[in-house]
Amino acid sequence: MSYFLDLPKRSSKPRAEGITHVIDPGIGLSAQEDLVKGYGEFIDIVKLGWGTSYIDSQVKEKISYYQRNQIEVYVGGTLFELSYMQGQLDKFRAWLESLNLKIVEVSDGILDLPPKEKTNIIREFAQDFKVLSEVGSKDVEKVVAPYRWVEAIERELEAGSWRVITEGRESGTAGIYRPTGEIREGLIEEILTKIPAEKIIFEAPRKEQQVWFILNVGREVNLGNIATKDVLSVETLRRGLRADTIQISKPSSL
Amino acid sequence: MSYFLDLPKRSSKPRAEGITHVIDPGIGLSAQEDLVKGYGEFIDIVKLGWGTSYIDSQVKEKISYYQRNQIEVYVGGTLFELSYMQGQLDKFRAWLESLNLKIVEVSDGILDLPPKEKTNIIREFAQDFKVLSEVGSKDVEKVVAPYRWVEAIERELEAGSWRVITEGRESGTAGIYRPTGEIREGLIEEILTKIPAEKIIFEAPRKEQQVWFILNVGREVNLGNIATKDVLSVETLRRGLRADTIQISKPSSL
Amino acid sequence: MSYFLDLPKRSSKPRAEGITHVIDPGIGLSAQEDLVKGYGEFIDIVKLGWGTSYIDSQVKEKISYYQRNQIEVYVGGTLFELSYMQGQLDKFRAWLESLNLKIVEVSDGILDLPPKEKTNIIREFAQDFKVLSEVGSKDVEKVVAPYRWVEAIERELEAGSWRVITEGRESGTAGIYRPTGEIREGLIEEILTKIPAEKIIFEAPRKEQQVWFILNVGREVNLGNIATKDVLSVETLRRGLRADTIQISKPSSL
Repeated sequence: MSYFLDLPKRSSKPRAEGITHVIDPGIGLSAQEDLVKGYGEFIDIVKLGWGTSYIDSQVKEKISYYQRNQIEVYVGGTLFELSYMQGQLDKFRAWLESLNLKIVEVSDGILDLPPKEKTNIIREFAQDFKVLSEVGSKDVEKVVAPYRWVEAIERELEAGSWRVITEGRESGTAGIYRPTGEIREGLIEEILTKIPAEKIIFEAPRKEQQVWFILNVGREVNLGNIATKDVLSVETLRRGLRADTIQISKPSSL
Repeated sequence: MSYFLDLPKRSSKPRAEGITHVIDPGIGLSAQEDLVKGYGEFIDIVKLGWGTSYIDSQVKEKISYYQRNQIEVYVGGTLFELSYMQGQLDKFRAWLESLNLKIVEVSDGILDLPPKEKTNIIREFAQDFKVLSEVGSKDVEKVVAPYRWVEAIERELEAGSWRVITEGRESGTAGIYRPTGEIREGLIEEILTKIPAEKIIFEAPRKEQQVWFILNVGREVNLGNIATKDVLSVETLRRGLRADTIQISKPSSL
Repeated sequence: MSYFLDLPKRSSKPRAEGITHVIDPGIGLSAQEDLVKGYGEFIDIVKLGWGTSYIDSQVKEKISYYQRNQIEVYVGGTLFELSYMQGQLDKFRAWLESLNLKIVEVSDGILDLPPKEKTNIIREFAQDFKVLSEVGSKDVEKVVAPYRWVEAIERELEAGSWRVITEGRESGTAGIYRPTGEIREGLIEEILTKIPAEKIIFEAPRKEQQVWFILNVGREVNLGNIATKDVLSVETLRRGLRADTIQISKPSSL
């Protein structure tokens, strides 16, 4: 294929920024193969959504297939939270190891985890795992002041989180979003005055949210909770190959 | 896989309650295989949506594959209604037999079927088929009083329906729902004071509808019109493996 | 399969009207095979959405597979517009030829293309390609008077467009739709008093939009931007096999 268009630069794998983080809510094996063979170069990390991996009989096969194709994979934070609530973190950890997982998510979207407790857990897991910690509640009515988001993110990065994920849910209606899906822009701005964008993965499941982040934070913003069907679309948005993020200029022939 | 979490009990197949009823709107053969191999244990019944089966050249193959994998299958009530309107119930019945179908849906979502006529048809089909009858109009503006829903459901169960389906459409915006998708809660409550929940399959295509039924009717509520992509999600909702239906409790380690 | 229902007539391939135009936003190879083997007879044209084809490593294979199965295929107008803006129409044309594409879309959804310039381009491409030209802006706030739509469509057909596409986006919220997805009915009516319906492909990604066109323009209306998952549904809508477009009549047995 010959490339004749002048487009924004785009990093390639392995990426330190411009990460596309995809949520797998339980796709079958041929759909997984379609995704990986067709668009694997555009996927950095896959999350097996919420507690699905716990009852998915094909989970080992799926994890192994992602990993063999240079895609990192981990299980949704819901399982961490449930294990913590039930005092089963040791068994949880052993289970992750039995699945050959190298990443763990430490979140408190459901439970109330005292900050100190959360950073302790991050610190401990960080000795053996790459830790993704998540900030923000899944409860749409819980609105937290921006300075407290910043504090939490800084605290967790310092404790050893590889990246911090800002909560948006699969629906894009909580955490950094209003229940309508609208972005809490002031919150994002305040976070980014204090924290480098590459340390954050912004959950952005909806197209208008992806567009906003690309136009306002940059084409190499880390985007999370991307639906499997939207992987190629997100890549075109980053590269200015879709109307919403195209770089308009006068035709050079005029 | 080692199971270390304390989760709500969940029935296994063949299920008398806790039925998950899935709508197949025309998925291809490898998508069907993905669905059945990956998540077939969580699927009790598949409906080939509305009149799709009538023009789907792969219909025999698809039906046979579902049945060989312990998933019951039938064709949408639209075909019953069209056949009735055109005076072709005999040919309809012969067609069902040619497809080796064991379940028939008797509905009046489109046509006006006098109650007595409907129960007569149910009674007749029930001699040779498992009958699913559906109550409620597809017309979003048709609001029927709760006591009339109860009467209809009782009448049809007595006539021989195996289960009664309460209409919601694929969109979750008619019948037991307001046009916004909101649940007519008073209607559901009144139905359930008179009819055992296990005799009803509640069409609940949207996640917030599924969550409502699980939290308010119970984890073993029969849910219908589940999208193929949501099968694993619904199973996690039933088992308390997703934030919306998780059983919050104090960490046992505290 | 025996056909026993009396249904509206439906054309078969190759179709001059009743065209179903599908958008492929980047489905994998087994999903493509599912689509084509299962429902290819209901698909006339596939558009590889916006700029996806430019970075899809499987693009040649996908194009060839559609074409071998009697489905025409082309790439989204975004690539034409980008090439035009960058003064690269020659390289764009060579690229289309290298992909063995026989159709080109000439659109101005993003850029401001003077009418005369657009018709010149259409005229030139029409010597070697089947031209689909698109009318209407992707900008939801750009509302153009109906008489100007008519003028543009007439001008482009006269310049050699095979069919004119009326813009609706993948979301059905621009061009011929209000931002809510509601149809600009007056606009459609005015267009159809002047232009034969078979010369237009109406982008209609949402079910209620498809239903409206089928009920108001006819079962053989050309519909565009149909999602791959909705192909069978659209076919049932055309044939009166779904509640929304069924022909209600008294049961003939009464």
